[in-house]
Parts: sequence; structure tokens; C-alpha cells
Amino acid sequence: MEWEVIPGGVTAPRGFRAAGVYAGLKKANRDKKDLALIVSDTLASAAAVYTTNKVQAAPLKITREHLASGRARAIVANSGNANACTGEQGLKDARRMAEVTAEILGIKPQEVVVASTGVIGVPLPMDKIEAGIRKAAQELSPTGSRAAAEAILTTDLRVKEIAVRFHFKGSPVVIGGIAKGSGMIHPHMATMLAFLTTDAVLSPEQLKKALVSAVDNTFNLITVDGDTSTNDMVVVLANGLSGVGPTSEEEYRIFAAALEYVCRYLARLIARDGEGASRLIEVEVRGAATLTDARKIARAIAGSNLVKSAVFGADANWGRILCAAGYAGAELDPGRVDIFIESAAGCEQLASKGEPACFDEAKASAILSAEEVKIIVDLNLGQATAVAYGCDLTYDYVKINASYRT
Amino acid sequence: MEWEVIPGGVTAPRGFRAAGVYAGLKKANRDKKDLALIVSDTLASAAAVYTTNKVQAAPLKITREHLASGRARAIVANSGNANACTGEQGLKDARRMAEVTAEILGIKPQEVVVASTGVIGVPLPMDKIEAGIRKAAQELSPTGSRAAAEAILTTDLRVKEIAVRFHFKGSPVVIGGIAKGSGMIHPHMATMLAFLTTDAVLSPEQLKKALVSAVDNTFNLITVDGDTSTNDMVVVLANGLSGVGPTSEEEYRIFAAALEYVCRYLARLIARDGEGASRLIEVEVRGAATLTDARKIARAIAGSNLVKSAVFGADANWGRILCAAGYAGAELDPGRVDIFIESAAGCEQLASKGEPACFDEAKASAILSAEEVKIIVDLNLGQATAVAYGCDLTYDYVKINASYRT
Repeated sequence: MEWEVIPGGVTAPRGFRAAGVYAGLKKANRDKKDLALIVSDTLASAAAVYTTNKVQAAPLKITREHLASGRARAIVANSGNANACTGEQGLKDARRMAEVTAEILGIKPQEVVVASTGVIGVPLPMDKIEAGIRKAAQELSPTGSRAAAEAILTTDLRVKEIAVRFHFKGSPVVIGGIAKGSGMIHPHMATMLAFLTTDAVLSPEQLKKALVSAVDNTFNLITVDGDTSTNDMVVVLANGLSGVGPTSEEEYRIFAAALEYVCRYLARLIARDGEGASRLIEVEVRGAATLTDARKIARAIAGSNLVKSAVFGADANWGRILCAAGYAGAELDPGRVDIFIESAAGCEQLASKGEPACFDEAKASAILSAEEVKIIVDLNLGQATAVAYGCDLTYDYVKINASYRT
Repeated sequence: MEWEVIPGGVTAPRGFRAAGVYAGLKKANRDKKDLALIVSDTLASAAAVYTTNKVQAAPLKITREHLASGRARAIVANSGNANACTGEQGLKDARRMAEVTAEILGIKPQEVVVASTGVIGVPLPMDKIEAGIRKAAQELSPTGSRAAAEAILTTDLRVKEIAVRFHFKGSPVVIGGIAKGSGMIHPHMATMLAFLTTDAVLSPEQLKKALVSAVDNTFNLITVDGDTSTNDMVVVLANGLSGVGPTSEEEYRIFAAALEYVCRYLARLIARDGEGASRLIEVEVRGAATLTDARKIARAIAGSNLVKSAVFGADANWGRILCAAGYAGAELDPGRVDIFIESAAGCEQLASKGEPACFDEAKASAILSAEEVKIIVDLNLGQATAVAYGCDLTYDYVKINASYRT
């Protein structure tokens, strides 16, 4: 790789400070931070990708307005309340979050990105939010990434944070990121947020292009339960304080690859941390006719309840994998499909040319019992490949999602 | 209704005989029939609808060839082995099933419909199949529908059988049907088969038209786990022995409606009988801009793991319902959506114009605790409506699908 992983998350790039505080949105529990603030010392190029769900939460609408300029300086995000399905009041509250943040930081409301995740259909307790923002502003620190990463979590079990460093013309450039998952799984909880920062010099257009392609290859290929939330948002800020940025195709390629690496790292953590999940399932589709086909099939397999249940049970049920590929709506010749499974425990071919390969059940089961399982499907049709990430379907998934109020 | 429900299933219409026998395909258990035969005394108009899965089992391919003529006299079906992903041998075996059946019945192999359901990737034990077909031929009876209905079951808990009678110009016309489910849920098991018979006089074209529209409104709107199998098939035979058939638009409408009723009855049984299911979920979408939109949204809601889990937990989690509608890929204005739940325990509005309605949690939970739960979503956009059928997601689903081999 042309970059090295370093600590520091979103505050690893120059000129970014962050904080995470307890504002009182989550059930009275002072250990649970629920309001995050990320601030750039200077106005940054900004780009974002939003949920494709037709039902979109108020903060997304406001952020969309604000990022029309392609510039931003701050991100304010709360967990515990999604501010979704809250009508006019919700829009007012999201605007107010930006205004309060801007006022305290002495910037324009239009320079503030607003994000929320949590309960749907309940108005934001604005008094708590405002107090939380003031508190967070006081605690802003160049080492505040971890606190911010904690503050955006909902049902996640693990903090999701990373940073990478590489060089342009001898000058170091850093990209950092934090994210929360973990599937629209816990009652009323929305799915995923990711906030990325970099000190590279990029135009809003360059940044948007790199973000869209990185997200398509990573976050858009995670599936925990197939449900797409109302609050999904990935935002990147580039404040240019490294003094250098991609000035050639080659440098742009390096930046884009590093950004994708950061997104993939966070995406894998989200899939691995899927509610109730005991295993990460990585589905690699090879030899597809087109990239779209490869993605469709990878997503269908990673999203199949039957495949997910089989992996939970360490059952090498390749018929389900082939079937999921069959209904993905992509070009497929069953008679050419090879299926393999792979993990720390080894590798085994389950099917050859669409028919059973003779494999060792015990070994296959051992492979599927690992914490991270890879399913490889070669369509033998073309050159396109794609990787999707998912998790197994467990009793806990049903338990968490069924017995919330009971 | 313009028809009455009568006993007799597929042998209720004149000139149909059926049998179900134990051929030894299922684990040594003589109580479990596994080979069915349905025969018409005369050559019948025939129509069929097949799985959309790109991976199609051998019997589907052979049946497709045979029904090119639009005529058939017999249906031979086995459970316990899907004859899928079995390559050239599978095609040979499916052809052989038709040949043996034809030989015994003294008809042409092209007049035989072949269907299989069960384990994927294992060759058919043809000796057992052939002996089974001979045995079934000897047991053919005008009251054999029930035995045939039992013989096509796999993981189903209940036999699925019905017949209806109505009149054309004073002469009785009967439509009968049997089906098996119950979701591609049990390891290696394929999904659904439905065999329909009628003594009405119809051309293959009329029959195909009526079948396609009935299936689109019923079987194509069931979702148990979102997985589409390699062996799905719905076949209808019309032998004309009632002497009457639809001769006017009005009479065709009556026939089509009765056929759809039979399909809906069987489709509901399949959803209700979904593996591990404790409840039938009926999702009615109203006020959609187009029929396609209505179907997409109904299917998305009925198929959402979050909605299915919430119903299992009797949790009136309307946010999940609205979210599923939001990602269905159909026209939707969240600000107009009304959501209701209904069951034997009553009715309650959960959301109004996309925002929370004040409802009684306890009552809502009671409504969702019924055996059959209806979710009504009014988009308030247009006139189109659709109903999808599904079931809740339970611990048993995961258990059955995870611990098959372990």
C-alpha cells in the first residue's frame, strides 16, 4: 500500500478538532456520549452521499442545502434521536442545530453539517441539544476523535475509527474517519453515519468524485439486514492544510485509493458489528460480465437470509449461494459458476461449474466457523469483480428486534 | 362471491384422477409420501409459470419443452430431491420421469409435466422414482387429491388444497388446486409448487392469460425469506369436460376471478406456513400511483426483516414500515403516508401523514399478537392497490436454517 495506518481518526489530519459529550439524549447514562462535534480550523471543501431511502430525515435535508456550496467547516451529530418523520418541527430543529453550532464557533450556519441517528418520530429535545453543543465546543480538542466516534454510536458494540498517511511531493497527507453502524436493526434506530476528514488540497468536485466512487465500492456494498435507513450519510471535509493535493492522475489515484481504504475499513467494521452478528461475511464475486452484475450478485448473496443462517450454522450450503446469485437479476450461467469458501481455517471449493464439488464437510464447517468468512463466487463470464460485506443471521438478531418493548 | 368452495382439490373437476405414494425419496419414513401423479382423462389445455431464478432445475426445462404445445394430460412430481444443479444427468432423469409416466398411462411423453422439489445437487434415484410412478399409476383415484397434496410437501406443516365451483349457463364448472411451500427455508429445499385443474373449456392462450394474472396477484406477492428457488412452478390443466367455458368477457372475468381466488387461498396458506412462522402478515398498500408501485412497496414491507421481527415481537414499530416503503423503489411522499394495523383483536392507526399518530401501545401490541395480522399502508397518491403476504421472523427460522447439519 502507498499509505500507512496511523492513530488519531478524524483529528489526525492537520487543523481538525473534535469532541464527544453526553447531552442527555440517550437513557440517563453519563457513560454514553450522544453528541459529537468535528471542526476544521479553516473553511474546507465538503462532499456528502446520502441514503437512497425516499423517507429522509430532517438533518439530511438541511445538510443537503448547506453543502450546495461545496464548502463546510463543522459537523454536528447526535445519537439517541434520528429527528426523522418529525415534519416541520424536525426541519426547524435541524436548522437550529446548525445555527447554534455556527453561533458558538463564529461561523455561518451554512458551513455546518447536521446529522442525527436514533429514535424515529420523536421531536429533538432542543434544550439538551443546545447545551450539548456548547459543552462540546468547549471540549474541542486535536485528540477528540475517539470521543466523537463514541458519541455517534447507537447499538454498535465497537468504536469505528481510522486514519492513514501518505505523501505528495514529500509532504504528508492524512485522511481520517469515524463511523457508526450497525444496521437498521435496533428498534427505531437508523443505520450508518461516516465522517471523513483530510488535510489534502482538493476542489469540492474532486472530493465528491472520490467520495462517490469510494462509497460505491464500500459502504454501498454492506448489508446487515437489507433495510435502508432514513438517516444514512457519509461526509468528507478537506481543509487543504497539508498544502498539497493530487495534481496528477497518479496522485489523484493514490488519494482515491487511500480514501477508499478508509471507507472499506469502516464498512467492514460496520458489517462485522451488525446487530447480533457472530461473523463477518465477505462475498467476492469474480468473472462477472459487468461491475453492476458483480455488485448485484455480491449483494444478493451477502443479503440472503438463507446464506446468513447457513454461515451462522457453519453449514456449507452452496446451493443457497448459487440460488441467491440466480435471483440477483444479473447475467449468470449456472453451468459455469465455481464457489469457494475461505477463512483463517483454510479454503475449500464447494461447487464447480454449477455442480457439487466433492469437499470435506468437516473442513468446510471449520472454515465457516471462523470469525471472518469469505465466500468466493466465480461466474466465469467476464472480468468484473466486486466485494460485498455482511454478517450472519443469529438468534440474537431476532431477539433484539422482537423483544424491544416486551 | 360467484363461486362456492367445495372439497376434492385437484380431483374435484370432472375427469381428473390423482395419487400420492411413498417412493423412498424422503428419509425412510413410510408415512411421508413423496411422489404425486395427477392425470386427466383427456388431453387438456395447459399453461405454466416458472421461477424467475436464472438457476433453473432440470424438470422446469423439460416441462417448458413439453408445454410448448399448450397441451398436457399428466403431472408427475416428487419431493425429497429437487433434481437441480445436476447437469446433463438431471435433464436425462427428468425426461425419463416423463417417459415412464407416459408409457404407463399410454400417452405421449410430451403430454407429461415434470416437477421436483427437495435436495439440490444430488442425482435422482431413478429406480425408486420409476417404481414410485408405477405404484402411483395403480393408485390413481377420483378422490386422490389429498394424497397427491401430501406427496409434494417438504418442510410444510399443513396440506394445502382447495376447490371451487361456479356455473356457466347453468352448467357447473370446477377449479381445484394443491400447493406446497414453504419458503426456500429448510436446508437445500426448494420453494413452491402449485398444481391447478379445471374442467372448464379454455384455449391454451386463454388459460395462460388467466394464470399469469392470477399468479402475479397472488403467488408472486408471497415472501417468506426473499429467496427465490430454482424449482418454483405453477401449472394449470383445463380438460374441458364440463362442456362449458367462458364465452363472454363477463364469463372470462368470473373464471379468472375464481382461479385467482384459488391461487390466493393457496398463497396465503404458503405464507402462513412459512418455516418457523408464528403469524401470517398481510400487507395491503392503497393509494399507490401505479400497480407496480403498490406491489413493490407491499413486497418490501412484507419482506423486511425488521418488520417481520417487530411483528414477531408484537412491536408496533411503524417507523420500520415507513422505511421499508421508502426503499421499495416506488413513488412515495412520506408526508402523505397513513399506516394502520388490523387483526381479529381490532384496528389502530399508527402513523398519519408520515408522522406518529397517538395510538394505544397495549392495543397495538394485542392487534399484532393475533395469528393473522394486516398492515395497511395508504400512500394517498393514486388509486392502485396491492396485497402481499408474508410471515414473521422467529427464533425457529434461524434455528431451522442454521442447525440443519449440526
